[in-house]
Amino acid sequence: MKLLIVGSVAVDTIDTPLGSVKRALGGSATYASVASSYFTTPGIVGVVGNDFEKKHINMLKKRGVDLEGLQIDKSGKTFFWSGYYEGDMNQAITRDTQLNVFETFNPILPDSYKNAPFVLLGNIHPALQLQVLEQVKKPRLTLCDSMNLWITIEPKLLEKVFRKVDVICINDGEAMQFCNTSSLPKAAKELLKLGAKYVIIKKGAHGVQLFGKKSFFSLPAIPLEKVKDPTGAGDSFAGGTMGYLSNVKDLSEDNFRRALVTGTVMASYCVENFSCRKTASLKKEDIVKRVDMLKEFSRIPTYKVKTKI
Amino acid sequence: MKLLIVGSVAVDTIDTPLGSVKRALGGSATYASVASSYFTTPGIVGVVGNDFEKKHINMLKKRGVDLEGLQIDKSGKTFFWSGYYEGDMNQAITRDTQLNVFETFNPILPDSYKNAPFVLLGNIHPALQLQVLEQVKKPRLTLCDSMNLWITIEPKLLEKVFRKVDVICINDGEAMQFCNTSSLPKAAKELLKLGAKYVIIKKGAHGVQLFGKKSFFSLPAIPLEKVKDPTGAGDSFAGGTMGYLSNVKDLSEDNFRRALVTGTVMASYCVENFSCRKTASLKKEDIVKRVDMLKEFSRIPTYKVKTKI
Repeated sequence: MKLLIVGSVAVDTIDTPLGSVKRALGGSATYASVASSYFTTPGIVGVVGNDFEKKHINMLKKRGVDLEGLQIDKSGKTFFWSGYYEGDMNQAITRDTQLNVFETFNPILPDSYKNAPFVLLGNIHPALQLQVLEQVKKPRLTLCDSMNLWITIEPKLLEKVFRKVDVICINDGEAMQFCNTSSLPKAAKELLKLGAKYVIIKKGAHGVQLFGKKSFFSLPAIPLEKVKDPTGAGDSFAGGTMGYLSNVKDLSEDNFRRALVTGTVMASYCVENFSCRKTASLKKEDIVKRVDMLKEFSRIPTYKVKTKI
Repeated sequence: MKLLIVGSVAVDTIDTPLGSVKRALGGSATYASVASSYFTTPGIVGVVGNDFEKKHINMLKKRGVDLEGLQIDKSGKTFFWSGYYEGDMNQAITRDTQLNVFETFNPILPDSYKNAPFVLLGNIHPALQLQVLEQVKKPRLTLCDSMNLWITIEPKLLEKVFRKVDVICINDGEAMQFCNTSSLPKAAKELLKLGAKYVIIKKGAHGVQLFGKKSFFSLPAIPLEKVKDPTGAGDSFAGGTMGYLSNVKDLSEDNFRRALVTGTVMASYCVENFSCRKTASLKKEDIVKRVDMLKEFSRIPTYKVKTKI
């Protein structure tokens, strides 16, 4: 197991302008582990309840996801979320959240997880993210994701997490909210000051950006005319990114750039169908195709400036 | 004169969180012509009033801008706009607009302008843009810019313009408003159906995108921590873009990509100071520096996909 992923494993009921799904497999750890599974051996730290369907377990196993760290709490049901999207689908609107067994979730790592070289702290309560960090021994790289909810209600705890990880991965609005500024470059700089080597800013349809101490990389999203369901895009991005990084020799900036390309490709497939339907059934050539698209979309031809005056 | 630019020449009073300026030189034709002047010989079709300061004329002449098409209407004052920006400065808020001599502006081209090979229809009333198109003989390339105001009050006339030009250059919100969709790729596709070879989508701090019939190119903006005044960024972008294109042999897609890089660099300098203060006083090395930055910001290293499963 090379990539430890902590996060939610959930059952989702979702409506979007292009369809709906009832009680489908969801959750940040699910999306991230499936996306990463093409590149590495992920292991999930999470909890599910007595209603969790066997077919979900089978799918995760088929994708090579290590489930030793997935607790099955027979005392209650799996975390349930119901929501919908409208218009440009930029923001999910929650109808119902039932924490169920997630309410008392205690992320205890199996011994075999404690030496995981790569750690992805998916979007859950920062206290749980910290608990995981305390149990891992000497990870080569840690990345944390988060969301506006924790910035609003647990900013201090979240800052603690941000100070301990190598990579902060959040969306543009969240970065600016956390740093109380309307300038994204300023927010990224502030976040870097907390100690992370890189800050990855997710901008949805506008792509992603990698801010380093002295470097910057910007990558577009793949323009999709039909986005069926944006749920899990950020988690799939993080999973693809960390999956790639946990499979290369060095953590150079160039490998971070390639990792962002990988994450972007996984996110683009995620949103084309509900749940992990698309990301769980990709072929290598699907991934290659979109990596090549991104290269072409970003390609600046050689250009020697000629001025007149 | 290689690049005909029609648009407003204005006097602006502007407040932003980082400062303010009173009665500074502004207007779409001004910003575009100054930005283009590093790469080509632009000529302005526009009008100013009896209060237009000699120093502005001198600056434009110094930048090599042909002013034969700039009418001086002694019967009134120059078009005046006053506005301010707040927060993320995404949207200008108008305090006062005085059309003055612009109200009766009749864009009659001097004979020497009628054979202009390149035409930039800056953001003015679409009826005036059409009048210019009727007077030019056989331009190699025409590009039009516009704004939400004309989409709202003159959608039919604007569509006429869109059907006649080679390149439509508008911002993302405007494209989606015009096409009545919340999907940008869908809007771009709709716009291409009107007949343009390319649609350029301006996304402010999120960069620009080039949509062709079968191609796509995305370029980030240069991340700037201090944006002093976003006024004129879009015009400077269009000016830099058309300036570059009017100075190259062929209108290949690669040259369009280089043109967007050029436009992006000019826009980045524009917003760092009020009016054309910065774009009017650049050196070649300033432009080279930011072209190189954009290349590095967009660079995807060679990447061969290796999957595990």
